[in-house]
Amino acid sequence: MSLSCHLPNVMAEMCPSRRILNHVTSRWGMLILIALQDGTQRFSALRRRIGGVSERMLALSLQQLERDGLVHRRAFDVVPPHVEYTLTPLGTEAAARVRALAEWVEDNLSRLPPEALAG
Amino acid sequence: MSLSCHLPNVMAEMCPSRRILNHVTSRWGMLILIALQDGTQRFSALRRRIGGVSERMLALSLQQLERDGLVHRRAFDVVPPHVEYTLTPLGTEAAARVRALAEWVEDNLSRLPPEALAG
Repeated sequence: MSLSCHLPNVMAEMCPSRRILNHVTSRWGMLILIALQDGTQRFSALRRRIGGVSERMLALSLQQLERDGLVHRRAFDVVPPHVEYTLTPLGTEAAARVRALAEWVEDNLSRLPPEALAG
Repeated sequence: MSLSCHLPNVMAEMCPSRRILNHVTSRWGMLILIALQDGTQRFSALRRRIGGVSERMLALSLQQLERDGLVHRRAFDVVPPHVEYTLTPLGTEAAARVRALAEWVEDNLSRLPPEALAG
């Protein structure tokens, strides 16, 4: 592990913390973390839950979260294939912070100026 | 204001809350919000603080946050131009949630698997 920052700091361009922050706040990564707070889910259920996500982007985003140690993937050797996703303990912690931010947005949407909501 | 969701919900593709969430968690938007928690700052100071940001991306990201009502821009009519940016009350609330997430990443970086930090 070659850290480019002694003390992790998202303001530092080469610090890995910035890259991880970007993964966790990626368009679909955030919504996956929030959706998985409800518990283990199959790929198809996640796809239905997260409006507008493509099969490809959901798969890529799940792979990223799995590599980051935030999501655990479990494949059952059955026909048709059955794959489940669960938050790891780390993922559970990250998801709580992401949800806090998303809920703040949902709860305060009406306080934002009209131009924020326009386009 | 034409809301496409009765109850704001980031899982709904057309709900404006999802777009606002994406603004607040944009690569540079997040770092601007965190940097401005320290108080009013000039463009040049923000640019120094946020490692790797270009002048163009900083300007565009500030414009977006201003349109969303999260950042206030104040231009002084002097030579050379002097422009300052400050969090609005809404921005202060959003910044606190963004910082909580960023700090979690910084504090837990060493718990992430090596492959998360590698590439």
